[in-house]
Order: sequence, then structure tokens, then C-alpha cells
Amino acid sequence: MSPIHLAIVGVGKIARDQHLPSIAKNPDFQLVAAASRHGSVDGIDNFTSIDEMLEKVPGIEAVSLCMPPQHRYDAAYKALNAGKHVFMEKPPGATLSEVEDLQALADRKGLSLFASWHSRYAPAVEATKAFLASTTIRSMKVIWKEDVRHWHPNQEWIWQAGGLGVFDPGINALSIVTHILPKPVFITRATLEFPENRDAPIAADITFTDADGLDLSAEFDWRQTGKQSWDIVADTEAGQMVLSEGGAKLSIDGVLKHEEPEQEYPMLYKRFAEIVKAGKSDVDLAPLRHVADAFMLGRRKFVDAFHD
Amino acid sequence: MSPIHLAIVGVGKIARDQHLPSIAKNPDFQLVAAASRHGSVDGIDNFTSIDEMLEKVPGIEAVSLCMPPQHRYDAAYKALNAGKHVFMEKPPGATLSEVEDLQALADRKGLSLFASWHSRYAPAVEATKAFLASTTIRSMKVIWKEDVRHWHPNQEWIWQAGGLGVFDPGINALSIVTHILPKPVFITRATLEFPENRDAPIAADITFTDADGLDLSAEFDWRQTGKQSWDIVADTEAGQMVLSEGGAKLSIDGVLKHEEPEQEYPMLYKRFAEIVKAGKSDVDLAPLRHVADAFMLGRRKFVDAFHD
Repeated sequence: MSPIHLAIVGVGKIARDQHLPSIAKNPDFQLVAAASRHGSVDGIDNFTSIDEMLEKVPGIEAVSLCMPPQHRYDAAYKALNAGKHVFMEKPPGATLSEVEDLQALADRKGLSLFASWHSRYAPAVEATKAFLASTTIRSMKVIWKEDVRHWHPNQEWIWQAGGLGVFDPGINALSIVTHILPKPVFITRATLEFPENRDAPIAADITFTDADGLDLSAEFDWRQTGKQSWDIVADTEAGQMVLSEGGAKLSIDGVLKHEEPEQEYPMLYKRFAEIVKAGKSDVDLAPLRHVADAFMLGRRKFVDAFHD
Repeated sequence: MSPIHLAIVGVGKIARDQHLPSIAKNPDFQLVAAASRHGSVDGIDNFTSIDEMLEKVPGIEAVSLCMPPQHRYDAAYKALNAGKHVFMEKPPGATLSEVEDLQALADRKGLSLFASWHSRYAPAVEATKAFLASTTIRSMKVIWKEDVRHWHPNQEWIWQAGGLGVFDPGINALSIVTHILPKPVFITRATLEFPENRDAPIAADITFTDADGLDLSAEFDWRQTGKQSWDIVADTEAGQMVLSEGGAKLSIDGVLKHEEPEQEYPMLYKRFAEIVKAGKSDVDLAPLRHVADAFMLGRRKFVDAFHD
């Protein structure tokens, strides 16, 4: 089978760090064009708008969308409408409703839509899911604390309304939690801390439960200097489970059970090729739905102004 | 067919004003019990908890839930788990995720779950939907402005996180809009005004669009004294459409086209009997999804403190 002719839209940090290297290594894809207001990719045709790219390069079969979520719907709609399969970086949109609309369009057109959650492909996630399925969970705690100045230097869009703030990394944790837990959870209480000069939260404290009364909490914080934390800790009948480093390592009672090299984005492109070949979509909105629920249900608290 | 043995949970203002009179007039239902922390219904068995009611009155076939949304999941879960059909007052929950969970439970149990939207049964809504399907909409404006002191005197729960604030009436408008428009819409911009002493918004200004670029806006305000406004106005190729008084009257170019007596809650119970007999559920989360999207995407603005 000849490779899928792929175009990329939004050549920013995440495209350069992750998408382009993963595409280059995957024989199922051939990168043929890029559209970006500011960036470009060497050796292929570059455009400043998706409209111009779709018009000038008719052979494009699939499009990967890497721009901020506030602008994703338009590009996804245009690509699907032009008959292209679509890969969406996380989060898949600025609202749940627009993603539902895209999914319906992809279904009508018989195209594959992929709402990707890269953290679900972290090395130890599947081993953790299997472990939790084999025992009973007493309680679980998610601690996702990082230094926004280090990870998102001067990225204005993450602080704008619709940019999600600390939920931009937090949704990675939620994408793992919703995948590894045996039952669906829902939020019962949340506090969101907004810097007084910003439209998006810098921290969040969330309590979830499930139909059986599971005790699940999550702490997201963007003010963490020094050691960074991306950990999910569970007290289970088979011991204390720690999924650490963003899903990279699984330990039970302090003994390392699973660790392998990180391959998240290569796995995402493997999955995208798979669903395109199978004529399916892969859109699970649960992580974004929890974020929307947190904003709807949560108390707002104002904290010190944040300056980059 | 003998009437469905129904119980009611949460005997507050909405139960007394709407549910009890509608149930009394509908021969498909026989009210057999009530559970409420503070209220009671004359002539039937009353309990202070749903647990006790379900245990002591095994003949209950269906349960109507009229308490504030923050407490709805627990009651709905218990009722479904005990094998009862469930009618939920709007909004169907404090989060989208918990309602998805209830829907899955109802499906597994083969029970009917009804997420009711009473405003969809306002007299002129169906005539409006038919009119809009026959023409092209140029733009639409929703104006939902009422005096919270008059309509929700001292109802603390509406001001708490999860109580939705001005979206409590606003979701009625959204339930109509999502029913009458030919295509799904999604929010592109929103501003939510929070009184500085409250956890829920007192006003909201929202811009929507759809795949064709529809110009749709909504203004919700709880500070309206004097004339109250519950209007949806559209500029169409067939003239100016006004759906006024919360869906009661339809006029085109100033000419009254449809008006009949209001029968929203009687229609809801008619619909509930219908889905119970047909073995179906009726759960459309679109109105609540737009509210969650507005909270997630919207800018927060602080305004004067509100005192009842």
C-alpha cells in the first residue's frame, strides 16, 4: 500500500518537537505540504492558509492539526469537507459541541477523525490498566504539577479563554485516568484558581467519584518549581500503585513493574494509520467533558497575577 | 393498562407548581409516594429519604426527580438501580459525565430515563421549527432576561457552584434553540458575569455559529426589572420571526401565527408515559453541553454583589 499523503497545519512547538519527527519515521505517511501562519517545513510545499493548501495540493489524503484548540474547528471542517481524514492534537476543540459536529460530519463523509490523547500511549499505561482490572481500588490521587514558565514559555493562547490554562497538561492526566479506571467517573466538587490578570486557571483541585463511591482526587498546579510531578497514585488491595513520570513508569509497593522508552507520538501516528485503513474514527470526548464539567461545577478563586 | 405507580422526590416549588398538578390530571400515572427533606404531599406515603421510600414502597414503578441538580445523580442512580424508570427535571445533572453514566445504567437495566426540557413543549415551538425548516435563517438572537428576585426568591442553590445561575433559565432558551434550528450550533465566544459574592453567573453574553457560519447570539440576564423577556428573534428570508413569551407565541413580520394555552408539564408527563410504554429513553444533552461549553470557553467578568 502506498503511503498516506499527509499535510500538517500549525507548525509550532508541538509540531516540531513531536509530529514532524514521528511522521518522518512512519512509512505509512508521506508528508507533502504544510500550512502555518508563521512556521514552515523544509523540503515540502508551504502555505499560509489551509484553504490555499487544500486548493493547490489536491493529492492530500489526510491532515494533521497542531494549532491551538481555539482555531481547530474551522480547519477540521474544511479538511473533512474536502474529503480528507483528520488527526487532531489534544484537546480536540475549544468546545464539546463543535467536536460532536465534526464527528457527525466525518461519519456522513465516511472519513476517519482522530481525537488524539498522546498520554494514553505513555509506556506504562496499558500495564497499569491491566493491574487495576485485577484488583480493587480503595482510593486514587492524581498529582500533576509543573512549571508553566518552563513548559509553555510566552504561549499566550494557553492563558486566553478557551485555552484551558492548567487543564492543558491536566487533560493529559484525565486522558490516562479515564482509560485505566474500570468504571466511568464524574466530578462532584472542584476549585479553580485564576490569576487575577488571566482568563484561564493556573491551578485546580478536583474531587471525582463513580457509581460505587470511588474516592478520586486530582491536583493540577502550574506553579511547581524544582521537581515536576506527573503521578497517579492508587491505594489498592494488591498494594500501592504509582504510575509516575506522566505514565512512563509503573511501580507496585515501591517495586518497578514496567518501564520502556517513551514513544507517544510515534504510537499516535501508528494508530492514525490503523483507523484510516480500517475506515473508522477514534473520538473519545471523556477527558474534555471532565474539563467542561470542572469549569461548570467548579468554584472560582482568584490568586496572584501571573507574569511570564 | 393500569396506571404507572409513580413517586416524586424533592417536594419544593417546581414540584408543587407544576409536577403535582400535571400528575394529578394524567390517568397514565398514579402518585403513590413522595420523598423530601422538607416538603410532603397530602394523601400519600411520605418519606424523608429516597432510600427509605424505595425500601418501604416496593410497588413504585417510576420516580420523578425534582430536587436541585447538585443532588440528582444519587437519587437517579438509586432509583434506576432499584429497577424504576426515572423522570429528571432540568437540568438533568450537575455534570455531563454523571448523566452519561446514568444513561448507560438505564440502557443496561432496560429502563426509561427522561432528561426533560419543559420549554421544548411550549405551545409555539413546533410551529417555529416547521417555519425555520421552510426558509433560510440570516441571523438569530435570543433574549432571555428576567428578575431573579421575583422568580427565584431566596433559592440559595441556584447561586452555588453547580447551580448554574442565570443558565438555569437560560438553559430553557438553549433547549428551544437546539430543537428548532436545522443544524447543530456551537459557541465561539462567551462572557459570564459573576456577582463578586456569588459562585454562579448573573448574566451571560454568548456568540454561537454553525458549520455554515450562522450568526446566533444569546443574552441572558437575571437583573431585568419591569417587562420580562423570553424571546427568540430571527431574521429570515421569509420575514422577521419572533418566538416570544418563552415559546408561547409565534409571530412572522408582526402577525401572530400561533398561540395556544401553555401545557408544558402536562406534555412532559404525556411524553414520559409514552417512552415508558415504548421501552425507550429520551436524553438529549445538547442544552447542558452548551452551558458547560460556555463555562469552559467563556471569559469571567466580576460585577456588583447580589443580595436577595
